[in-house]
Amino acid sequence: MTMTAPDITKRTSIGAQRNPASEDAILTAAAEILREGGLSAFSIEAVARRAKAGKPTIYRWWPSKAALLLDVYHRQKGETFYADTGNTREDLIVFLETLLGFWKTSAGEVFRSIIAEAQSDPAALEALRDYAVTRCRASGVILERGVARGDIRSGLDIPLVMELFSSFCWQRLLTGRLNPSRDQIAHIVDAVLTGFATTGRDAQ
Amino acid sequence: MTMTAPDITKRTSIGAQRNPASEDAILTAAAEILREGGLSAFSIEAVARRAKAGKPTIYRWWPSKAALLLDVYHRQKGETFYADTGNTREDLIVFLETLLGFWKTSAGEVFRSIIAEAQSDPAALEALRDYAVTRCRASGVILERGVARGDIRSGLDIPLVMELFSSFCWQRLLTGRLNPSRDQIAHIVDAVLTGFATTGRDAQ
Repeated sequence: MTMTAPDITKRTSIGAQRNPASEDAILTAAAEILREGGLSAFSIEAVARRAKAGKPTIYRWWPSKAALLLDVYHRQKGETFYADTGNTREDLIVFLETLLGFWKTSAGEVFRSIIAEAQSDPAALEALRDYAVTRCRASGVILERGVARGDIRSGLDIPLVMELFSSFCWQRLLTGRLNPSRDQIAHIVDAVLTGFATTGRDAQ
Repeated sequence: MTMTAPDITKRTSIGAQRNPASEDAILTAAAEILREGGLSAFSIEAVARRAKAGKPTIYRWWPSKAALLLDVYHRQKGETFYADTGNTREDLIVFLETLLGFWKTSAGEVFRSIIAEAQSDPAALEALRDYAVTRCRASGVILERGVARGDIRSGLDIPLVMELFSSFCWQRLLTGRLNPSRDQIAHIVDAVLTGFATTGRDAQ
């Protein structure tokens, strides 16, 4: 079983060119603050102080606290999200289990707090929207591999249908129900792969 | 085309027996406060004053502000959510379009604020969780009718797979993307009815 590293390509809405060394120092400082003091300790000011960076530099690269927090959050993700097992059904199950499992750690608290903040802060909403769109495109690799192998039909709007899986996880996170059984996860994946209709595509 | 009224059965977690006339007065007062003053004006205290009800009565029937707000929110829903067109594909499209459309009104602001509050308030989280579970069961009527007609296969865990549709709408609400096109909505419904796999259920 081989792993595919998550896509950490920067979002296109962040226009300013970043200096890799400074970017790394800032993200490392931000992660340390979050680990040591939690969300309440996290601010652009605190990150600037610890990274010995100017606040304007941080704001040039991350237009909001939420945007920076999302990058820190994303860095905590391991490399197992888009596991390539050679089987789409298994890849989708691993994806759902890995995401739900990740959110049982402190990362879940961080992500739900960003979602909450986005409901009253337009800058956070923009960062969250960019992130969600980027992630649905990235996770689409699971179905793209299936199409290439011939076990997923072509013609699907892959980022759009991948939203169904990530959204399911979001709702579970936001309602505190991160423990669906492996059977329930497999049921969802099988239902979607097989189709709900009695006669498959002829039902259309 | 006939309509099915949304299920407004009270959630089982609310144990105390309610007096229908008082309940109606409280919900009506709460809706008026929300309409006139918005979310910032909404409090149990304000509702009690306007409904000439005791705060203990309100708290006996609604254990949190979020629980009361969810009931007020739910009452604003029309009767078109679970339209019975005689065709499961069409019913699902109508469901998604109606929910996304409903959230373009002030109801969307109310619902996303409840979700945000639930991320830091355990009582709000409990109310939201109860509501989400109840709604997924209620919307399952769409697929149950399909099973009865023979166009949806039996053996699906209907509330579980209905979560895919409601979750999709939640993510769209929470990221400010309530305007998928009719084509995109139809694509999602067709993808799920038909299945993603090339060979339908034989792929399992």
